[in-house]
Amino acid sequence: MAVGLYVGRFQPFHMGHLKAIEHILKRMDELIIAVGSAQYSHTSRDPFTAGERIAMIRLALDEAKFDRSKYMIIPIPDVGVHAIWVSHLLSYVPKFDVCFTNEPLTSRLFKEAGLRVEAIPFFNRGVYSAREIRRRILKGEDWRALLPPSVANFMESIGGVQRIRDISKSDEIV
Amino acid sequence: MAVGLYVGRFQPFHMGHLKAIEHILKRMDELIIAVGSAQYSHTSRDPFTAGERIAMIRLALDEAKFDRSKYMIIPIPDVGVHAIWVSHLLSYVPKFDVCFTNEPLTSRLFKEAGLRVEAIPFFNRGVYSAREIRRRILKGEDWRALLPPSVANFMESIGGVQRIRDISKSDEIV
Amino acid sequence: MAVGLYVGRFQPFHMGHLKAIEHILKRMDELIIAVGSAQYSHTSRDPFTAGERIAMIRLALDEAKFDRSKYMIIPIPDVGVHAIWVSHLLSYVPKFDVCFTNEPLTSRLFKEAGLRVEAIPFFNRGVYSAREIRRRILKGEDWRALLPPSVANFMESIGGVQRIRDISKSDEIV
Amino acid sequence: MAVGLYVGRFQPFHMGHLKAIEHILKRMDELIIAVGSAQYSHTSRDPFTAGERIAMIRLALDEAKFDRSKYMIIPIPDVGVHAIWVSHLLSYVPKFDVCFTNEPLTSRLFKEAGLRVEAIPFFNRGVYSAREIRRRILKGEDWRALLPPSVANFMESIGGVQRIRDISKSDEIV
Amino acid sequence: MAVGLYVGRFQPFHMGHLKAIEHILKRMDELIIAVGSAQYSHTSRDPFTAGERIAMIRLALDEAKFDRSKYMIIPIPDVGVHAIWVSHLLSYVPKFDVCFTNEPLTSRLFKEAGLRVEAIPFFNRGVYSAREIRRRILKGEDWRALLPPSVANFMESIGGVQRIRDISKSDEIV
Amino acid sequence: MAVGLYVGRFQPFHMGHLKAIEHILKRMDELIIAVGSAQYSHTSRDPFTAGERIAMIRLALDEAKFDRSKYMIIPIPDVGVHAIWVSHLLSYVPKFDVCFTNEPLTSRLFKEAGLRVEAIPFFNRGVYSAREIRRRILKGEDWRALLPPSVANFMESIGGVQRIRDISKSDEIV
Repeated sequence: MAVGLYVGRFQPFHMGHLKAIEHILKRMDELIIAVGSAQYSHTSRDPFTAGERIAMIRLALDEAKFDRSKYMIIPIPDVGVHAIWVSHLLSYVPKFDVCFTNEPLTSRLFKEAGLRVEAIPFFNRGVYSAREIRRRILKGEDWRALLPPSVANFMESIGGVQRIRDISKSDEIV
Repeated sequence: MAVGLYVGRFQPFHMGHLKAIEHILKRMDELIIAVGSAQYSHTSRDPFTAGERIAMIRLALDEAKFDRSKYMIIPIPDVGVHAIWVSHLLSYVPKFDVCFTNEPLTSRLFKEAGLRVEAIPFFNRGVYSAREIRRRILKGEDWRALLPPSVANFMESIGGVQRIRDISKSDEIV
Repeated sequence: MAVGLYVGRFQPFHMGHLKAIEHILKRMDELIIAVGSAQYSHTSRDPFTAGERIAMIRLALDEAKFDRSKYMIIPIPDVGVHAIWVSHLLSYVPKFDVCFTNEPLTSRLFKEAGLRVEAIPFFNRGVYSAREIRRRILKGEDWRALLPPSVANFMESIGGVQRIRDISKSDEIV
Repeated sequence: MAVGLYVGRFQPFHMGHLKAIEHILKRMDELIIAVGSAQYSHTSRDPFTAGERIAMIRLALDEAKFDRSKYMIIPIPDVGVHAIWVSHLLSYVPKFDVCFTNEPLTSRLFKEAGLRVEAIPFFNRGVYSAREIRRRILKGEDWRALLPPSVANFMESIGGVQRIRDISKSDEIV
Repeated sequence: MAVGLYVGRFQPFHMGHLKAIEHILKRMDELIIAVGSAQYSHTSRDPFTAGERIAMIRLALDEAKFDRSKYMIIPIPDVGVHAIWVSHLLSYVPKFDVCFTNEPLTSRLFKEAGLRVEAIPFFNRGVYSAREIRRRILKGEDWRALLPPSVANFMESIGGVQRIRDISKSDEIV
Repeated sequence: MAVGLYVGRFQPFHMGHLKAIEHILKRMDELIIAVGSAQYSHTSRDPFTAGERIAMIRLALDEAKFDRSKYMIIPIPDVGVHAIWVSHLLSYVPKFDVCFTNEPLTSRLFKEAGLRVEAIPFFNRGVYSAREIRRRILKGEDWRALLPPSVANFMESIGGVQRIRDISKSDEIV
């Protein structure tokens, strides 16, 4: 049985992430979705808590009719020190066979540790990006189209749009 | 839909844990299993990594024919400061309705935070305890009977028995 | 008895802070002044230690004839994780009734935690700001007018003006 | 003007602490009361939060008719590394002249840093100790006599006696 | 016997560092070379691990025929809090007499702690800087000329040039 | 060229450590001596700072006429999480070929990471142990015989004997 690992921050989870998971699950029997920077929330870069992001991923994958028995979602806190990041991640997740990532540093760290890395085909990357979604929310442009409807609804139900706007007016506690 | 939370360290996962999960899943629609002290491993108190413990729980629940779509397993690192522990945990997991625990401090912290707590009926607690299992391993007594067979096999396959013995001869790095 | 909480970094304490405290003490019987980012000093954003900031606040409030028995000053170290910040702060200070703040993120975090928040009328905010004071010091413009005289004198007595200039030439240790 | 520093954990604040403060305030014009291990609570060794301990100290010193303008109470989080502890403490408190302590390590660290240290006369130390109070609470013996009445009442009002008992049954989260 | 301290990040070690060490070793009997920000690597600002930087310094000083018995190389992790940095550093290194540095904040922190500081003559600082080397690598310009040949070779042997390029395309994990 | 790694806490450095280094340097061309738990000092288990321990090792190896060009001494701070310890250590030291250790956990962690480990012949281990030295100091028995004379003299010159006694009367700050 082949197990894949897919690492992301999912701030928020969008259609590009969904396409990536679809791609990986065609190649692997099971998938571990690692939610990075798990301890952070309420910042411009990381507006949502790990718990909220796990809820988003569940909603999106249910909506897309993915079989829950094929994946697990694991939050991974940042340690802030790249040299130990792979060891740290390995201690949080069950064994896997392939890491799927397009991120150059993540890819390099996995390869330096001797792990197998595969790239994911990009899916309209300029548009389907968490940064673009956060930008559209701040500009008052249409952001819902970039997300699975269930995720867009969830974000609104928890006041996530207003949270992103409040945070943008404030770059710090105090 | 009612969601329960069950927090444990699962060092290792044993029959008592399995009975507790059975009990909770009769009362709740879904269950979040939180794996505490997630960053620790290779100590007498915490021999296994979070990833290994997640693998154990998956194996045991598959073996017991639990439906994977009814639960998720979330590692929670310790923060070492009790006053912030509930906030910390809440940020790592999706929303839940009831915390199931018999641990007096965990129970108190949840209650002080205004959350609903329910006790779990004990299942032969003197025997089905992780401490007893680790003790039996060190004494060379039968420990396999206290674990689901799939977990006992997994522990052996990763060299877990020898790990517990090595650690017992050493209480520190260096 | 009504107790207010006022959170700031006070880098340095200026006339705007003094006006805010005057405003709050008209509404509350007692005030807790929380000095945020307490562990930081010797940076462009946080030039003064918590101890120096506490000394400044004491001097300014004595000079303005505030009754010392009506307030206490409590340093609060940053934890760097917003989701636990309110719990963290609550564990450092005695009970209070209302949080006074204009900062959008601080306000949001307090409200998400179910606490009562009130805004403070701004007092010439463009001028009475710590950032403006630090800017004037670097440009060689008049900065003393923005501070209570006792605080300006204290800053000079500890070499604070030169410290801000030295730090500006250096954005890092080494 | 001479300022004294008095460091303690105050778990809880008792008559011995009150006598010590009385002693110091006869010798010094002002006193800084540093509340150590500020981040910890809900453990056998540190049952109360820093905020609760600050409230206790205020109550006891008000009850004993100490002038609030003569002292300030400053929480100091532990850093867990002794070699930097004095620098850390110095950054949290305004300038002081003498450290009052009987604790051999605290005394040594202050002296190694070149600070002036004075001992405090012991006041029936076998009885007036936080450890003895916590012991009496667990044994159901009379503990109230060792505390200022205002502190004993406060402890009961926040459920502190039950908290100490709950914690004693649990040596860990989970 | 006079011992000097020289603190740097050495990302990477270049001809300017070599000139500085030459300058100091003419004035001191022995030298402690402190490698700052020791825990960081794989970032734009800190591409190399402490271990790699120690290897570079050894190679360069061997190549320049410095006597190994005259210096030691000590990695110092960052603590992120300037007020305790000097105490922290002092706990990691043997006793020394003079700190050699041109960095304004480092110099100020040492002086505030009562230590003796001396400046180092600049050696063509605009060119011999780690930032310039990293810039040239990204632009494809000649960077080897700024480094001792042994260090340039080492950097290439560990894939350091490609690492700097990969990191530049990525400003974060995930 | 073969490089060995030898990890220890050296609290304090004694004749057993010296014998071990002698053994390794007969087998290896160069040696990296890693000083573990580098951030700790002033505790019963770790009385001396990393800087003091580095000074001790230098003195002992000079006294025993070891060639300084054959070894380097590197402090390694503890991270408190065993699963990342090997990665952490590898980032602090130059490349090496063999780890020399008798410690079961250290040995296991190196082996799990795929590194080559060799045991060191014990040299009268019951007597030549740091714990025994600290015990003798507290009991007033002869401890000097277990140390190289230069180390014993150094310990006395920095007040180390009194420090160990002071610490033994105190198990905590405050």
